[in-house]
Amino acid sequence: MESHHYDLPNLPQAVDIFDTILRDGSQQEGLSLTVEDKIRVAEQLDHLGVAYIEGGWPGANPKDTEFFRRFKHELTLKTSTLVAFGSTRRAGHATESDEVLRALVEADTEVVCIVAKTWDRHVEEALKTSLDEAVAMVSDSVEFLTKNDKRVFLDGEHFFDGFRENPEFALRVLGAAEQAGAECLVLCDTNGGSLPGDITHTVAHVRESITSTSLGIHCHNDAGVAVANSLAAVSAGVTQVQGCINGYGERAGNTDLSAAIPDLSLKLNVRTIPLERLERLTPVAHHIAELVNHAPSSQQPYVGTSVFAHKGGLHASAVAKSKDLYEHIDPSLVGNGTRVVVSEMAGRSTLAMKATELGLDLDGAVLGEILDELKALEHAGYHFEVADGSLELLLRRATGWKPEFFDVESYRVITDHTGDDSGTVTTEATVKVRIGDQRFEATAEGNGPVNALDAALRECIGSHFGALAHIRLTDYRVRVLDTGVGTGAVTRVLIDSDDGEKTWTTIGVSENIIEASWQALYASIIFGLVHAQLRSDG
Amino acid sequence: MESHHYDLPNLPQAVDIFDTILRDGSQQEGLSLTVEDKIRVAEQLDHLGVAYIEGGWPGANPKDTEFFRRFKHELTLKTSTLVAFGSTRRAGHATESDEVLRALVEADTEVVCIVAKTWDRHVEEALKTSLDEAVAMVSDSVEFLTKNDKRVFLDGEHFFDGFRENPEFALRVLGAAEQAGAECLVLCDTNGGSLPGDITHTVAHVRESITSTSLGIHCHNDAGVAVANSLAAVSAGVTQVQGCINGYGERAGNTDLSAAIPDLSLKLNVRTIPLERLERLTPVAHHIAELVNHAPSSQQPYVGTSVFAHKGGLHASAVAKSKDLYEHIDPSLVGNGTRVVVSEMAGRSTLAMKATELGLDLDGAVLGEILDELKALEHAGYHFEVADGSLELLLRRATGWKPEFFDVESYRVITDHTGDDSGTVTTEATVKVRIGDQRFEATAEGNGPVNALDAALRECIGSHFGALAHIRLTDYRVRVLDTGVGTGAVTRVLIDSDDGEKTWTTIGVSENIIEASWQALYASIIFGLVHAQLRSDG
Repeated sequence: MESHHYDLPNLPQAVDIFDTILRDGSQQEGLSLTVEDKIRVAEQLDHLGVAYIEGGWPGANPKDTEFFRRFKHELTLKTSTLVAFGSTRRAGHATESDEVLRALVEADTEVVCIVAKTWDRHVEEALKTSLDEAVAMVSDSVEFLTKNDKRVFLDGEHFFDGFRENPEFALRVLGAAEQAGAECLVLCDTNGGSLPGDITHTVAHVRESITSTSLGIHCHNDAGVAVANSLAAVSAGVTQVQGCINGYGERAGNTDLSAAIPDLSLKLNVRTIPLERLERLTPVAHHIAELVNHAPSSQQPYVGTSVFAHKGGLHASAVAKSKDLYEHIDPSLVGNGTRVVVSEMAGRSTLAMKATELGLDLDGAVLGEILDELKALEHAGYHFEVADGSLELLLRRATGWKPEFFDVESYRVITDHTGDDSGTVTTEATVKVRIGDQRFEATAEGNGPVNALDAALRECIGSHFGALAHIRLTDYRVRVLDTGVGTGAVTRVLIDSDDGEKTWTTIGVSENIIEASWQALYASIIFGLVHAQLRSDG
Repeated sequence: MESHHYDLPNLPQAVDIFDTILRDGSQQEGLSLTVEDKIRVAEQLDHLGVAYIEGGWPGANPKDTEFFRRFKHELTLKTSTLVAFGSTRRAGHATESDEVLRALVEADTEVVCIVAKTWDRHVEEALKTSLDEAVAMVSDSVEFLTKNDKRVFLDGEHFFDGFRENPEFALRVLGAAEQAGAECLVLCDTNGGSLPGDITHTVAHVRESITSTSLGIHCHNDAGVAVANSLAAVSAGVTQVQGCINGYGERAGNTDLSAAIPDLSLKLNVRTIPLERLERLTPVAHHIAELVNHAPSSQQPYVGTSVFAHKGGLHASAVAKSKDLYEHIDPSLVGNGTRVVVSEMAGRSTLAMKATELGLDLDGAVLGEILDELKALEHAGYHFEVADGSLELLLRRATGWKPEFFDVESYRVITDHTGDDSGTVTTEATVKVRIGDQRFEATAEGNGPVNALDAALRECIGSHFGALAHIRLTDYRVRVLDTGVGTGAVTRVLIDSDDGEKTWTTIGVSENIIEASWQALYASIIFGLVHAQLRSDG
């Protein structure tokens, strides 16, 4: 490798973080988001405070079209700006009659991001049009969109490969977009094959010819260096970084923003998300992983559950004494924690805060016991970080409280299926409970076991507890956990509930999926009844 | 960031790859290797052709001691050299009576690697000795080992942090090792917090004072840039790269050699393992993952199962025509392969390719019908790109084929729970099938409904289909899909199966989780029986 020929500029003071989970990230094999999922992921990204959220491609499929129709009413972004993705006009067509561009305008976002081919061979072999027409498609489309009051970002697809083979054409496309009024030109390493040296060299070269428009970077991790490539681009003058929290995306994934954000903010002093929100990084990364139902790697830089875990007694006590000797950053800066120590210190203070929040009086000894119980339960597969309802019940029980609404005697669920592929399936549940001296029993059908159990339980106790009518189960999630050698797999069920005043999540864990579901259902109902009582008492 | 002040040397022609799965990699949480496992991992690494295999720390624990006792008889390395790891002598003790050094000599390897502290604060706060004594410990230990005919590598622990705070001391330690005859000085980013810029800068600086001894690099992935850091070090003159195939290791892991090796060999033209063995990379990475019982990520650069997978109709047909437009390298170079993924967006050409792959003859009209059916099913919640087994059955049915092994008459699953929180739960399933004129019925218990159904079905038909004994369900995943307002949620179940020759995934979708599980289970068994039949026919 020759020595560097380019003088790198000073690092920018700040860059815009652009998350594309909802568009490019969703290309990951096995990842499929409903419109509801997309809205909830966007809420998390806004809570974290990324500058831009790419929501999808309106018009490309019914799901994305519906998302852009619904976001206006169902999604209130406080920090982030929503971006609609699309392409330039089709070759040989007018912008005015182009369906893709029209769908972009109708998506009604302030910002749009359109993709253009910057590798000459893609123009010739995939688009099958001339290089001149490809440039005109960019000029026309950017102009059309800016006239329709859009702020326009241009994704230069295959930019780095294109620049290697035909730099003149690649730069011509960027120049056309700049002339037509694009706000940011994003250099995409679409096939993910570049190394940091290539990125630095190329961005520095682009900077010489694109002087008045800001640049962005969009990397894929095919060579295992997407985060480093993004840092290299920033140090060469780029001010927008695209990627995905947790590095979702097709093939090896997009740039993992969970690493790029703290690398930039904490190590290079380049502002990304608001600094005081950096501590939301770990909880948001975990929450999004739950929403997209992809277990995050415990080894994931900054946010993984193992990355601040320390083995060995002596080492761990040394860590407690001089954390900076053993940890590259203070884990609390990104909302993570030193594991060995956390369970006894940061964990305790978190629990104490939670207890205070609930108005519960728990002394130090009791907190220690709860921590031990929590650790044992989490080891068995419980995950209280995402089950606030169950955590609250656990804390309440620690004060000596016991739910006294009803006692469960038994439940039974029967699922019957007759016939081959297209047979009929029925499920009925029977629940037996006692309230005081009285015994109640009810049987109900449902479209599945949880639904049937819920219906039977409500039939049993509904007349005694009017509040039950307001408690709705709004979501049900299941994950099978391999707890490791020795024990078998267990199933973890999460149920979200709502009573019009509050929403809460409860958890159940068991080898048996029906039992795990019942635990979460039972906890949900108890939580709802407790809060109805607190409200009527208060 | 200031511009670079150092002229980087030309890239070296070759570097030595040093794998430390058996030592540093084994520090990963949840990873525990028997002596037998270690021997088999070493065989794989030798088959791949890494220069050095670090086998463990003789004397530090009984397992590693036994490994070094047994390797002489049980392990014949053809390409790699085994390395024993240890530390310098203890502070204030003589080398001759030092147990660690004696165990290193007795391990009887040609090469040893010893760790020395190069961060002054670690010497003072952890070792609790003087900087002078720390330097003497290095000189004495290297001298002792070379006199005992060892080739000695020195791991400079916390080198980059040490160099930042006290470069004079960090360099003094290296200088002492060089003087005493060490063959390679390995700069370790022990806490994993450095970025490529730091690495380049520091290595270039070290190169100015260490002129006659070769340098190595040992990175951790805490900032998400371990591979890039290793490449940066090589471009600054390092000629030994330490890490682990699959990036095992504590916290965020060591440098993933599965990425660093092809980055160096294919993109920077630096020789690593013998070039003709690079195609062993994917099979060896997967084999090692099996041995250490850690499922590899499908997104892992170069060797993951998803990293050369292509989605989408138009795109997939373009890939078939001009692979280099869409793939950063030819996947066969690293023993991986292009895989076509069939999904909602799939076009006719994708399906046609898949049919050809299976040896099925499907004409255009039939393909059109299948495409419509696929789209309808995917809209209902099926997801065929992750269920290759179910897709294959669907394609086979389209040729007019029907499974004729057995007909299901009915199934029933009963789950009973007695008592409150800590009650007992039992599940039993009854399955009734017909094979020809005969009717079979069986009831079995299980730890959950799927397990019980599987057991009952096997009891019914197991004696008729010997192949069933080889078919194992290896994983079970559940996802609840909210298909949107109006319709209820459906449950999607995926089951992975294995028969010793093949692995496959099947899918079931239903409002009822039991029914969805049954569909996936039934398809899995049918797929297994079809392939057993094809093998015995063929």
